[in-house]
Amino acid sequence: MSEHADRLDRQFDFIKEIDKEKGVIRRNYITCADRRETDSDHAWHLAMMTLLLREYSDQPIDLLRTVTMVLLHDLVEIDAGDTFAYDEKARIGQHDREQRAADRIFVLLPEDQAARLRGIWEEFEARESAEAVFARAMDCIQPLMLNDATDGRAWREHGVRLSQVLRRNAATGSASKELWDYARERFIEPNVRNGNLIDDTKQ
Amino acid sequence: MSEHADRLDRQFDFIKEIDKEKGVIRRNYITCADRRETDSDHAWHLAMMTLLLREYSDQPIDLLRTVTMVLLHDLVEIDAGDTFAYDEKARIGQHDREQRAADRIFVLLPEDQAARLRGIWEEFEARESAEAVFARAMDCIQPLMLNDATDGRAWREHGVRLSQVLRRNAATGSASKELWDYARERFIEPNVRNGNLIDDTKQ
Repeated sequence: MSEHADRLDRQFDFIKEIDKEKGVIRRNYITCADRRETDSDHAWHLAMMTLLLREYSDQPIDLLRTVTMVLLHDLVEIDAGDTFAYDEKARIGQHDREQRAADRIFVLLPEDQAARLRGIWEEFEARESAEAVFARAMDCIQPLMLNDATDGRAWREHGVRLSQVLRRNAATGSASKELWDYARERFIEPNVRNGNLIDDTKQ
Repeated sequence: MSEHADRLDRQFDFIKEIDKEKGVIRRNYITCADRRETDSDHAWHLAMMTLLLREYSDQPIDLLRTVTMVLLHDLVEIDAGDTFAYDEKARIGQHDREQRAADRIFVLLPEDQAARLRGIWEEFEARESAEAVFARAMDCIQPLMLNDATDGRAWREHGVRLSQVLRRNAATGSASKELWDYARERFIEPNVRNGNLIDDTKQ
């Protein structure tokens, strides 16, 4: 068959392997069914948000690169599992677990694509490029929105505190002042007022 | 607050609305859990495939446009539901249902974005542009791969016949001869040989 059969085998081995992302469960709930979100749900939602909200980025971004980044940013969780943003204990060792996962998963691809995707994932992790800063902001704002839309269910279940949410979003404002202002006013403050988020920021 | 608050409200109304795509269930199964695939799972997987397989497109394609197309191609199913590719009765009225859904869902967005996304969806539906032809091929090949990877489970459950699969994939080869040859050899023929697909093409 085709001269590219070996290359295609590697590409489809990878495409089949990443089907497992659909089985990685996050902490937050979705709005339309009584279940928590999967990593694939989440990555798809971030990609749609990136397409729609890029106009608010405070720095110019390469849209295709940013969409690619959010689509693949959680692939390592196929091996490493989802680490709840507000579980400090679970985060110990997260970096090493995710690097080992990346070592296994990306290399299923032909060398050129493995290097390219690994590079984009490392760029996301480093949080330095304009694309990574914006992708990270999407990754932080989307669960704020979903928590707000589900009456803070995951926040209440885990006793999440305002200081934790603000720490996690420390760089959201540097991606987009406008989106961060909006997220604070629409998704965070109402949930502090109604007690879904514990306000531990006042003496 | 921001001068764009109204625009942002519309954008986030849409972003929240499309969370419902995570609740639309398709017929085929995923490999990593005993459940069927959701539209959001599927759209994410198609986007990853598009990024990895575009080199096989027989015509040059705009990658960002094609990725956008696969990400949004099933949004209308939030209202219209998933129509099983091999259920001829269910397909009656599908076009009208999906047009009505598009009329409701895209207009949640600010006018400029509503027009742009609706246009990309209409382009997908028309199956004429190189991007739409390739997106459609991804949409057809992905369930072949997943059916093969799950021992033809959905095919067997619904008594799917080879002629139906070939008819659905009538244009896959015009997107990419190479991908269609590969899909036939790796995903279709083995399942005809083992009986997962009913061979009704021989007299």
